[in-house]
Amino acid sequence: MKKKITIIGAGLVGSLLAVLLKKKGFTVDLLERRPDMRKNNISAGKSINLAMSVRGWKALELAGLRRDIEEIAIPMFGRCIHHTDGSTVFQHYGKNNEAIYSVSRGELNRKLMTLAEEAGVNIQFNQRITEVDIDRNEIYLENLDSGLTETRFQNDMIIAADGAFSALRNAYLKRDRFNYHQFYIEYGYKELHISPDDQGNFQLDKNALHIWPRKNFMLIALPNIDGSFTCTLFFPYDGSPSFNSIGNNDEAIHQLFETYFPDVIALMPNYINDFKNNPTASLVTVKCYPWTYSDKSMLIGDAAHAIVPFFGQGMNAGFEDCSTLMELMAEKGDDNWLEILPAYQEARKKNGDAVADLALQNFIEMRDLVADPIFLERKRIEKQIGLLYPQYFNSVYEMVSFSNTPYSYAIHCLKAQDELLANIMAEGAFDVLILQDAFKLKLEEMLKAYKTHVDAV
Amino acid sequence: MKKKITIIGAGLVGSLLAVLLKKKGFTVDLLERRPDMRKNNISAGKSINLAMSVRGWKALELAGLRRDIEEIAIPMFGRCIHHTDGSTVFQHYGKNNEAIYSVSRGELNRKLMTLAEEAGVNIQFNQRITEVDIDRNEIYLENLDSGLTETRFQNDMIIAADGAFSALRNAYLKRDRFNYHQFYIEYGYKELHISPDDQGNFQLDKNALHIWPRKNFMLIALPNIDGSFTCTLFFPYDGSPSFNSIGNNDEAIHQLFETYFPDVIALMPNYINDFKNNPTASLVTVKCYPWTYSDKSMLIGDAAHAIVPFFGQGMNAGFEDCSTLMELMAEKGDDNWLEILPAYQEARKKNGDAVADLALQNFIEMRDLVADPIFLERKRIEKQIGLLYPQYFNSVYEMVSFSNTPYSYAIHCLKAQDELLANIMAEGAFDVLILQDAFKLKLEEMLKAYKTHVDAV
Repeated sequence: MKKKITIIGAGLVGSLLAVLLKKKGFTVDLLERRPDMRKNNISAGKSINLAMSVRGWKALELAGLRRDIEEIAIPMFGRCIHHTDGSTVFQHYGKNNEAIYSVSRGELNRKLMTLAEEAGVNIQFNQRITEVDIDRNEIYLENLDSGLTETRFQNDMIIAADGAFSALRNAYLKRDRFNYHQFYIEYGYKELHISPDDQGNFQLDKNALHIWPRKNFMLIALPNIDGSFTCTLFFPYDGSPSFNSIGNNDEAIHQLFETYFPDVIALMPNYINDFKNNPTASLVTVKCYPWTYSDKSMLIGDAAHAIVPFFGQGMNAGFEDCSTLMELMAEKGDDNWLEILPAYQEARKKNGDAVADLALQNFIEMRDLVADPIFLERKRIEKQIGLLYPQYFNSVYEMVSFSNTPYSYAIHCLKAQDELLANIMAEGAFDVLILQDAFKLKLEEMLKAYKTHVDAV
Repeated sequence: MKKKITIIGAGLVGSLLAVLLKKKGFTVDLLERRPDMRKNNISAGKSINLAMSVRGWKALELAGLRRDIEEIAIPMFGRCIHHTDGSTVFQHYGKNNEAIYSVSRGELNRKLMTLAEEAGVNIQFNQRITEVDIDRNEIYLENLDSGLTETRFQNDMIIAADGAFSALRNAYLKRDRFNYHQFYIEYGYKELHISPDDQGNFQLDKNALHIWPRKNFMLIALPNIDGSFTCTLFFPYDGSPSFNSIGNNDEAIHQLFETYFPDVIALMPNYINDFKNNPTASLVTVKCYPWTYSDKSMLIGDAAHAIVPFFGQGMNAGFEDCSTLMELMAEKGDDNWLEILPAYQEARKKNGDAVADLALQNFIEMRDLVADPIFLERKRIEKQIGLLYPQYFNSVYEMVSFSNTPYSYAIHCLKAQDELLANIMAEGAFDVLILQDAFKLKLEEMLKAYKTHVDAV
């Protein structure tokens, strides 16, 4: 007899997981706090577009949904870096023309909900969880339509995909020996928007992730299928300039854009109102442990490991949780939660920690380093080395975005790669040296030593 | 018009603070979840005796309560280290015969409650807080006597002294940009007991903190005024031996004591039953920020900075929070909470972090290092140096326990002192060298360099 599973949260991970579990023959209830976003197009004005990469696609394929989602995804083959003088530089992400894929969060979520319902999942909206009794596996719900509070029984298994402020995790917080860490970076973000032009065309290269890196802050733009771009300004709360220093002052907002993003003003005529009307949202990282309780409940996605968006891996990491869970169910037996749950957290916790740290570090790369010619040169050399010696070297960025290499392995390579590339670049002009046999021998030795080192630790 | 202040938690810090605020002329309500411990002597069987030191006495003196508490405090002038073969070594804490003072938590709490009531504080027991609305400053209470839930109004100011699992802090947890970290060490503890002998006398030296250091775990014993000792076994949850490996097995408990604490068995004939019947309690560290909200509420003591007990500073740090708060009220104006609260968290947060880290580190010293003759030799040299060159050097232990030096300064000196003492000991036999003028000159140079270094950073 298959368990009756309740998934909390019909976001990206919850909706996808519902499809996967339904396909395995479970009865799946999906509880969602918000109203049905397909009927009420309520945007909080604080969305950041998603960058779907290999791990995301893998899980969608597992659910049989890859084709459906490809329809709403736009490949971005690299970063288009916008300097203050209006000049741009394009930097490929991959060495083999790989792409990450821009997807609107709202579009993707709506589509996944519909696909879940088509698979037979029962989604109940406007269900706010007031409490979870983790020993009895009871969820207390307030129906936001009726205002009624009711007690719900009969959850054989609760899976919380309810994001950074998870209700189940709040219940876990009261467990003895539950480790918990939530911390905010000193930056907030604000959604902005570039519309299509009069002919409905993209106003910027649609196959790039656009970055205006300004050392301590940055603006980014990701394409949407309607010809628009969803833009996000990542900006300090305090200091100068900052959200606090600028406030809601028209002139100060204008000055900010005039000084740092002059080329954007023409693309975004409404920027002053958008800046004033859209909320400033905060950026939290959450780490916790354990992620599971007995054979009764578990956390997945942001509920287990909320991260900052700078590596574009939040959704991908959550989808990879789903893939791993499916693999473990196949291995241990579909309903064998007493064995699945410990194996799941054992497999995923270290990767959740790693992707959280990778994401924090990548902010510095995006807002600062990509404007540095030496950094771009390093990236170019990395790709050549990866092409010449794939048996020894793959860049951390590529491991994360274009492979299923565990995040924990990728972050473990980070420092060794920094040292390796610094040493290689200290040898002289790479393009000249690489034509010399003596250098190639030396390079191969360096790469072998690097590989031995990272695989040994 | 003085504000009406509600203090949550009639523990050590809450009761003391109530006296201090009452003396300033505020109306003070003190809400306590538990029944009145003076009427119902309910022990949870998981108490650890307190070690009152300079910061604790300072705050008691401020409240005019020092004399009252001295009556129930026993000076401990040093550590008595018990080796496995039954031999003991005594190590003085201070260079001037300073002591820390053993106080039973229950005794102290009862006394402080009575002193608070005598000062005119209204303590309400059996009041469980179900929620705090931090914007309206409303506390929702469940009266555990009547089972009734009522809403309470009219808190001008809420001060949460409600410990490691603070209700106010739970409400803060939902604030945007609230940073929070709780983590448990991999050790639990169990209370044990050494009774007075037949004549009512102490069975061990009453003026020492007794330690049975066993590298990975330890037993400690602190005196009580009735001739008994409250003992605490700090022991790993997992591994071998551990709480999990031993479980509730009589023979395994016996083996543990036979092997590691043979001299204790005669003093503690009931140890097997105590081990089985007393709960295993966990050890949490909590760091968070901010500690205050507008001019409405604040966290104090363990609610702001729960720490592990290995430096005996939990209560002392909480009492020092009270002293600092009083100083700031005097400086800013007693009711000027808009200025007092930011200054309070600015002053105390770094010290809360520091004492938390100091406490974690001191576990290694207590359970392992104190059994090492080289470590004891270092401690002996430290004291001589402190006596000879007080203008340059005071040990971290003495700064923490016998001075009001900020914890943040003390922890900052830790590594520099490790290096300094290692260098001094590398010179050769200290007692011989210190008679030579050349060495004394060199030593003074080393100490000057140390002092310049720690004061510069």
